[in-house]
Amino acid sequence: MNKEIVKPAILPGFMELIPADQILFNRMKDIIRDNYERYGFLPIDTPVMERAEVLLAKGGGETEQQIYEFTKGDTDIALRFDLTVPLARYVAQHFSELTFPFKRYHIGKVYRGERAQRGRFREFYQCDIDIIGNGSLDIINDAEIPSIIYSTFKDLGFDNFTIKINNRKVLKGLFEWLGIKDSTMVLRSIDKLEKIGIEKVKLELDEQGIAEDAMNKIIEFIQISGTNEEKLERLSLLEIDNDKFNEGLEELTIVNRYIKAFGVPIDNYIIDLTIARGLDYYTGTVYETFLDDYTDIGSICSGGRYDDLASHYTKQRLPGVGISIGLTRLFYQLYEANLLKVKEAASIEVIVIPMKGCLDKSIEISNNLRDGGIRTQIYLEKGRLGKKFGFADRLNVPYVLLIGTEEIEKDRYTLRNMRTGEQTMLSIDDIVSKLRG
Amino acid sequence: MNKEIVKPAILPGFMELIPADQILFNRMKDIIRDNYERYGFLPIDTPVMERAEVLLAKGGGETEQQIYEFTKGDTDIALRFDLTVPLARYVAQHFSELTFPFKRYHIGKVYRGERAQRGRFREFYQCDIDIIGNGSLDIINDAEIPSIIYSTFKDLGFDNFTIKINNRKVLKGLFEWLGIKDSTMVLRSIDKLEKIGIEKVKLELDEQGIAEDAMNKIIEFIQISGTNEEKLERLSLLEIDNDKFNEGLEELTIVNRYIKAFGVPIDNYIIDLTIARGLDYYTGTVYETFLDDYTDIGSICSGGRYDDLASHYTKQRLPGVGISIGLTRLFYQLYEANLLKVKEAASIEVIVIPMKGCLDKSIEISNNLRDGGIRTQIYLEKGRLGKKFGFADRLNVPYVLLIGTEEIEKDRYTLRNMRTGEQTMLSIDDIVSKLRG
Repeated sequence: MNKEIVKPAILPGFMELIPADQILFNRMKDIIRDNYERYGFLPIDTPVMERAEVLLAKGGGETEQQIYEFTKGDTDIALRFDLTVPLARYVAQHFSELTFPFKRYHIGKVYRGERAQRGRFREFYQCDIDIIGNGSLDIINDAEIPSIIYSTFKDLGFDNFTIKINNRKVLKGLFEWLGIKDSTMVLRSIDKLEKIGIEKVKLELDEQGIAEDAMNKIIEFIQISGTNEEKLERLSLLEIDNDKFNEGLEELTIVNRYIKAFGVPIDNYIIDLTIARGLDYYTGTVYETFLDDYTDIGSICSGGRYDDLASHYTKQRLPGVGISIGLTRLFYQLYEANLLKVKEAASIEVIVIPMKGCLDKSIEISNNLRDGGIRTQIYLEKGRLGKKFGFADRLNVPYVLLIGTEEIEKDRYTLRNMRTGEQTMLSIDDIVSKLRG
Repeated sequence: MNKEIVKPAILPGFMELIPADQILFNRMKDIIRDNYERYGFLPIDTPVMERAEVLLAKGGGETEQQIYEFTKGDTDIALRFDLTVPLARYVAQHFSELTFPFKRYHIGKVYRGERAQRGRFREFYQCDIDIIGNGSLDIINDAEIPSIIYSTFKDLGFDNFTIKINNRKVLKGLFEWLGIKDSTMVLRSIDKLEKIGIEKVKLELDEQGIAEDAMNKIIEFIQISGTNEEKLERLSLLEIDNDKFNEGLEELTIVNRYIKAFGVPIDNYIIDLTIARGLDYYTGTVYETFLDDYTDIGSICSGGRYDDLASHYTKQRLPGVGISIGLTRLFYQLYEANLLKVKEAASIEVIVIPMKGCLDKSIEISNNLRDGGIRTQIYLEKGRLGKKFGFADRLNVPYVLLIGTEEIEKDRYTLRNMRTGEQTMLSIDDIVSKLRG
């Protein structure tokens, strides 16, 4: 045939892994799912594409120009760019079929046509949990969320990470009290404290026309230090007579009090009054999570409390709290920095190699191993023994089981540890126990 | 605020489930994945969108007008419409990084803008496995595939299903021998035998200009009956002097011989000489799988052997064999026919209900249960006990654990079986053992 060859390549900005790395990625995904399920979150799975008018109901926003949008027939279609908008639509649409507080997890791909750059992906997995109340949602839920972050990253193999917690009402109340009307810009500046330093924050505030008195109060506020309890006490000593401030302080106090009960060690969380999260979306508690030794990676898990999830789709007031892990980016960064903690995973536990004339017995034994729950591949091609071992070697499997006539006679089979080279002759039962253990 | 409400609805032709059903769906997906992994297949995950010229390299085909295609910037993009074309591209692209025979599984969503109709979906999960050889691939692999189908559907809860097996070389060789040049139409007609009956097949063959002699031979051929071994013997007794026919007969004989060794019970597979699979793509062994008592559902798992996977992307010859389960459609059909066999799944195993003043202890106990591997939700809202029980009831969880002051004093907690209404007071250790068991 005289066919033209099309160059096999994916689009720029997409992640595609070879199987050995895909196994590591999937292991991380499985650990996250397992933790979400352990805390009683229920799964949902929404379509990747939706009506554009639904996904863009909120309008505006930085992401809008990044959205993949197209027309099929006479329908305007968009690909989801996060899992929060689909959740809002889902809860509004299925409202009467759901039980509130509705705890759902969703792990799926989302799409953003970002400018291509290293470590940014146009298709990426988000792993989200949210707790949605019908009309109200107790503040205690905000204290449970950090324990899920803790448990998840612990299971992902990390010890040294810090969940930073704040409450936007505290900040907003302060600004109200100071007579600052548009706090959005001020919040954004404060949010950058860690990145740009106190002097540049001052400069930005000055440019925004914040008076010196107010600025000094803000600086005093964001420099409050000490233990979590000391911070809370110093906040109350500021004697700011503002309802929103006091509400925020009370919420933060409750969250701080119960995080301990939920089992998060004191070393893994901290109240950080400068964390605001850029998004206007959040209205109360906010979270960011950092690897202590690699803060460059940025927040590895963020989220917060919002007043009303689905106001674009329903008149029901649906307050909620949630977090998101951007798994594709996280995996990429950990991988590049050689920080992946998931065990080097051999998805295949053993490769069965039949010697000449021993195919039937080898198949039978493979069946037995699989029945014993061992992930088993049998090598079915003809060829020299060296070629067969080479195959197992390249797949980097921990064990090879050799089936020859001598083995069949003795009903003992040669199990080769591919790491150590050690070979032992064992019965099938012993092999199953050994591989299971 | 004076906001316009957008009606929360998904596009027609998409499946979206409430959590209770999503859990069942996920359980099926997990069982399929588990089986694919048990047989030593490695995971891959390719982008949902690719360059249109890559996905459409093969050109033509019925699916082409169903493809979601759009332009972003100056790039023509298409959404994948199956997992085979991305596999071909993947293997060609990563050829030097893969170990052959390459056994990969891929479970992911694909997109086809089909005319909307009941039970047809525009977004659906495919669950594929393929074994790809480099240059050659032993026929024994074709005998392993049915054992994976068997093991998977067995684990999905089915007993009465039949894997129908044929080899297209047998059919093609017969047609060559009969001097029929364009066998595609003939194959399609034969493929419809079960649906339309022998007389209509004859009519179609006649319309295709098949001579009477040849037609009689075809009819004699497709009516061959008996056990698998009898069928193979009767095929050889036809004394058809054609290389392709004989090659096919030999392959089918080997596959039949080894399927047994791979542990598929005789009741669960059959050689069916009329199975051809419409697609030209397949060149050897072909598979279709039917539920014996519900053949209306059509084939629930199909596939076959092909000569060359990736001829559009590479000059390497890559023969392979594989199967696909269209999970979304399968789930829908089983669900509608009330044939789902996966156990009614309570993702949440226990809901902890704190009585007034017992929140701290309740949180502590929830932590303990989760550490014990129990999927635990704690009810954190304030309210009457009846409301709390109502919540657990609606979520249909098997157990509720009640924590009150009396329980805390005795260090024994009230575990209520929500199915039977039975209540017992147990220690935390006993509760963990009971829920684990």
